Order: sequence, then structure tokens, then C-alpha cells
Amino acid sequence: MSTLDETRFFSPLDPDARRLPAKVTLVGAGPGDPELLTLKAARVLAEARLVLYDKLVSKDVLKLVNPQADLIYVGKESGHHTLSQEGIIELLVRIAKTGRSVVRLKGGDPYIFGRGGEEAQALAAHGIAFEVVPGISAAQGMAAYAGIPLTHRDHATQVVFVTGHLRDEHGERGLELDWPSLARPHQTLVIYMGVATLPIVCEQLVQHGLAADTPAAVIENVTLPTQRTVAGTLATLPTLARVHAVRAPALVVIGGVVALHAELAPHTRAEDEAGTAAR
Amino acid sequence: MSTLDETRFFSPLDPDARRLPAKVTLVGAGPGDPELLTLKAARVLAEARLVLYDKLVSKDVLKLVNPQADLIYVGKESGHHTLSQEGIIELLVRIAKTGRSVVRLKGGDPYIFGRGGEEAQALAAHGIAFEVVPGISAAQGMAAYAGIPLTHRDHATQVVFVTGHLRDEHGERGLELDWPSLARPHQTLVIYMGVATLPIVCEQLVQHGLAADTPAAVIENVTLPTQRTVAGTLATLPTLARVHAVRAPALVVIGGVVALHAELAPHTRAEDEAGTAAR
Repeated sequence: MSTLDETRFFSPLDPDARRLPAKVTLVGAGPGDPELLTLKAARVLAEARLVLYDKLVSKDVLKLVNPQADLIYVGKESGHHTLSQEGIIELLVRIAKTGRSVVRLKGGDPYIFGRGGEEAQALAAHGIAFEVVPGISAAQGMAAYAGIPLTHRDHATQVVFVTGHLRDEHGERGLELDWPSLARPHQTLVIYMGVATLPIVCEQLVQHGLAADTPAAVIENVTLPTQRTVAGTLATLPTLARVHAVRAPALVVIGGVVALHAELAPHTRAEDEAGTAAR
Repeated sequence: MSTLDETRFFSPLDPDARRLPAKVTLVGAGPGDPELLTLKAARVLAEARLVLYDKLVSKDVLKLVNPQADLIYVGKESGHHTLSQEGIIELLVRIAKTGRSVVRLKGGDPYIFGRGGEEAQALAAHGIAFEVVPGISAAQGMAAYAGIPLTHRDHATQVVFVTGHLRDEHGERGLELDWPSLARPHQTLVIYMGVATLPIVCEQLVQHGLAADTPAAVIENVTLPTQRTVAGTLATLPTLARVHAVRAPALVVIGGVVALHAELAPHTRAEDEAGTAAR
């Protein structure tokens, strides 16, 4: 299963050949604020020679990349992917096999809805060394910057992360979520990429038993200066999000902890007053 | 509800009085490896004057603190807390009210089982300004350094974090987890502080319908040079953990993604061969 292509590793044609064998570093770029990168991620970017980056990587994060490095944009955009996931994996493997080390920079954390697992498996299958640098996930950035703790003794003994992204890229198959487990009380539910499917999610959760007045919020541009929180309940949030024209990228959070936003946000980060819409 | 004690804020007796009003910064110290702190956390620590830190903050992380800062250990240890959570909150509020800014340094992320929500609420209630700096949570450090992605299209469409810590500190009340939701297939279940209750957890999950051969692992000293992974199944892990004398701090991970450890770990970080126990 694992094929180490040694002849390519030592190709004399490549100027990087002396630094062989090549290594791929999957790096989490965090939720947006460049100060939320880890020290390790910042070091890897400063030393990088070649960086493949995604759409969700902010411009300020890219400023941390070694100015001499080559940057390749492989961002995926809803509907029309610049490169398919398979294309990205093929490119990563192909570059590493020429002996060049690559940094694969992904929004958030590579192992939380980042498809980093699939990239890591492909690299392992080709005998290519790799390392993974975790990143602050959007849910954590949202919690800290919007004042919505993910767990809390009084409100949530567990936290669940799911994606609201339609599995089929053309939206034909719809959401296949485990509604009975998501509709349990006493937990915090964070839905990544959940703006488009917000009405379906709220409706299904209520149908599966969650109270319609369960606090719920959608947070746009998490940790960026443009961060905006729209808070309501399962019953009101779809309308509020439409009225306030909430757009991706945004996170949806559901559960008792959302009620803490009104209490904590005014004392914490400077999220614009106008940016927080009351329920 | 919110009381701003202005007279204390401007106490002329305090040498820090000019820097008023005081601010409290809740900082996530990450899972252990000091390179996994965020750039923001490192900056806050380098500028700190007074730091209250927990047991789970590693020595190497403390090296990032301004050498002139005062360090106060408020670590909680199972069974005999140095300071109760209420005591820590009282101390934070008391210090801030004298006009001194404080950094509250916690292992992992302050808003994931860090009780940061309770501290933030108390600060808000006293009108004390605060900021929260998220940290890489142990689950993320484990994923990256042990080669166990938290989500994966083929194995887990959602990830759940819970704590296996007994709610009652004297262990009298036992675990109150939502077993039906935790025993769902196609998800990754991460249990914080789960070593002591591992046998109960594995037994309950099987009783609630999860297959006994579901992959499961326990990872000790996540992201530290002493990191060690013991992998098995729900049926075998309690015995394996006992045989290998696994001790806290350790994370338990359950779900199909655990099977990727054998495939990914050899190509990723240098976890000692001897450190990985086969099932």
C-alpha cells in the first residue's frame, strides 16, 4: 500500500533536491485573526518555500508566509471548486514526489472538517512524510470573541461540531445529519457552513424534540474586525438571519450557552454594537 | 446585577493604578507543547504582570511568561483542590478590583471544559473588563500528534467532546452522561479526563448500542515528548489501559477515525515506537 518513490526523491533537476526527502506540513490557519495562529504555524509559514492555501485563509494570515515562498491558491468555492479535493491531493503528492517540501495551509484546524484526514492518508499511502499543526477552530474563535462558551456546567455538558454543508456539491442530496443526537438538550451544537441550510436545521431540530425557544445564533466573519452576531431562538433565527442578510462564512450555534452572549459580549471584545442584533 | 466599583479602580495605593481600569485575560495554554500556544497568547504572557495558572499548564509554557511577572499557582488536583473554583473566581475579582490586570492561564481552551464561562460571568457581573484568548484543545493536539483526525468523510460526520470527570469531586454521584447520544455511530467521541471512568464509559456505550469492536484509544500526555497512545476497541481498551498503566492527564477517543492511527502515526510525529501499544 505504501510506495516510497526514491528515484524521484533524489531527482537532480530540482533545486530543492538537497533538502530531501520532501515533507508536507498540514497547517491550521485558525478562524481569521492572524494572532490566533499557533507559534508553530507561524514558524512553519516563515520557513515555507511553497504554500498551497484555501479560500478561508485570511489575507493577514498570508502576510506571515515567507515573502520568498511560492503561493498557490487551491481554494474551493461553493458550486465551482477551483480544484477538486482529489485534484488538491494529486497536486500535493506530485509536488512532494519532485522533492519539494510543501505547506498545505487550511482555514481552522486541518482535522476538523478540513479534509486533512484524506490528505494525510494519501501522503501516508505514498510514503511521504508529513506533519500536522493544529489550528484554532472557528467554533473556538467564535466562543472567545462573541462571548459564547462552548461548555458550561449550567447549560452544556457536551459540545458537538457538525457541518451543515450539503454533501453533494450540487445540493441534490440534502443534509444527512443525525437529528436524534443533535436534538438532545444540555449540549452545545455548532454547525459549520450552516448559513444556507439554517432553516432546515432549525426546523428539523424542533421536529426532533428541541424546544423552539432554544437560544440560537449565527456569527459571521468569526474573529475578524467584521465579526457580527445575530442571536435569537430556533424559531426566530432563520428569519433574523435573512433580515440581517447574514452571509457565509458563518457559524451557527445552538444551545443554552447562546444566552450568555448578551451577558458576556459587552464586557469582552469590541464587537460593534450595531453588529449584534437582538432577538 | 453589574457593579462597577470605581473607588477601588482608582486606589492610589496600588502601583499599577495608572494602568486602570484593570482587565482580566483568560488565556488558553493549549495541550502541552508550548509551540501550540497562539501568537496572541504568547504576546499576552510576555506582557503579563500577574499570572494565575492551573495544574495542566506545562513548565515550558510558563517559560513564555514575562520573567518579571508574579506567578500564582491555583491548580486543581483531583480530590484535593488547592483552591476551589469559587475561590479562584473570588481571587480574580478581588485582584482586578485593586486595579491590577491579571492573566488567567488555563490548560487547553478556556471555553472547552475550562470553566472559563463561569469566570467570565463573574467578571461581567462585577463590571470587570475581560478578554478570552482561545487555545488548542487537547482533542486537537491529540489528533495532530497521534494521527487521529477528528472528522473524516468515511468515518465521522460529527465530533463530540464530553468530560469523563465525575461531577461530584468525591466520586459519589458518578457519571451523568447522555449515553444514547454518545452511543451513535458515525461520530468521533472525545472524552476529557476519562482515565478513571474508562471501564464505565466503554461498558455503557456498548450497552447503549455501539459495537464492541468500535476502535478506541487513550492518549497520555498529549503533544508532550512523553505522549503515548494505547489503541484497541471498546471491548479491549479498559484492560489495555490497565496493563499499560495509563495515567491522567489522558484523552479517550472512540470511533472509526481511531483506526487511522496505525496508518497515519508512523508517517507523522515521532511518537516513540514503544509508546504505541498495538491492540
